Amino acid sequence: MSKHYASARWEGNLIKGKGSYTLNTSGHNGSLNFSSRFEDDKSSSSPEELIGAAHASCFSMALSHALDQAGFAPFSAETEAEVTLEKKANGFSITSILLKNKTKAEGISNDKFHEIALGAKENCPVSKALKGIDIKLEAVLIT
Amino acid sequence: MSKHYASARWEGNLIKGKGSYTLNTSGHNGSLNFSSRFEDDKSSSSPEELIGAAHASCFSMALSHALDQAGFAPFSAETEAEVTLEKKANGFSITSILLKNKTKAEGISNDKFHEIALGAKENCPVSKALKGIDIKLEAVLIT
Repeated sequence: MSKHYASARWEGNLIKGKGSYTLNTSGHNGSLNFSSRFEDDKSSSSPEELIGAAHASCFSMALSHALDQAGFAPFSAETEAEVTLEKKANGFSITSILLKNKTKAEGISNDKFHEIALGAKENCPVSKALKGIDIKLEAVLIT
Repeated sequence: MSKHYASARWEGNLIKGKGSYTLNTSGHNGSLNFSSRFEDDKSSSSPEELIGAAHASCFSMALSHALDQAGFAPFSAETEAEVTLEKKANGFSITSILLKNKTKAEGISNDKFHEIALGAKENCPVSKALKGIDIKLEAVLIT
């Protein structure tokens, strides 16, 4: 079992207020604001960007591990996460995450790679936690 | 609707490999390694730390908004997230998140504050996404 810590602070109301988060291991402190989260401004981070980083990281690690376990030592697994936040009847919801992956590995067929990639998408800890979200995967094998 | 982007890269196998993630808005680049995620080393970040930052941020924003909507203008909402990763029968899983919140607001009773805080815990977009996790809340009102 391992435990992981982070914190955040918001001042004022949602629209005019401001906030920040801190990652405990590095001390990295990022800013948060309304328009970067709900509108088109991208000057600050957002919970959704952090979820994207968590999912891209988790999937890259899980896929590398699954390939290694299956005997196909991976060189690298790169993943971009696109997280969509939408206004629904019950308020704002994270409706989908698209994982776009490029993996370099040798000695594996395309079919076997996609089978293993699908398994990593289903079974990585962040995917299992994000039960409320539609998760899509586009994975490309580079040999 | 808004979209949010982040990426990650892992090189090598899970135990001996190394990785990093990037947040697109700030360009912040953090490192990832096996032992910081699954063991006690805390030199690097982890998907779980990023999930904690996302949840602490989302809850702080949601609680501030809910208090404001109910007529109790909040001064600040600070939240720490403790994320637990455990080995289960089906592999590693994020089993629980504990949100520890301290909120400064005026003119609100303790009971009303806790009612609003519980609603924010249930309804913030990150809580709704994390359907696979047991989410706990300890909230304290500072007047």
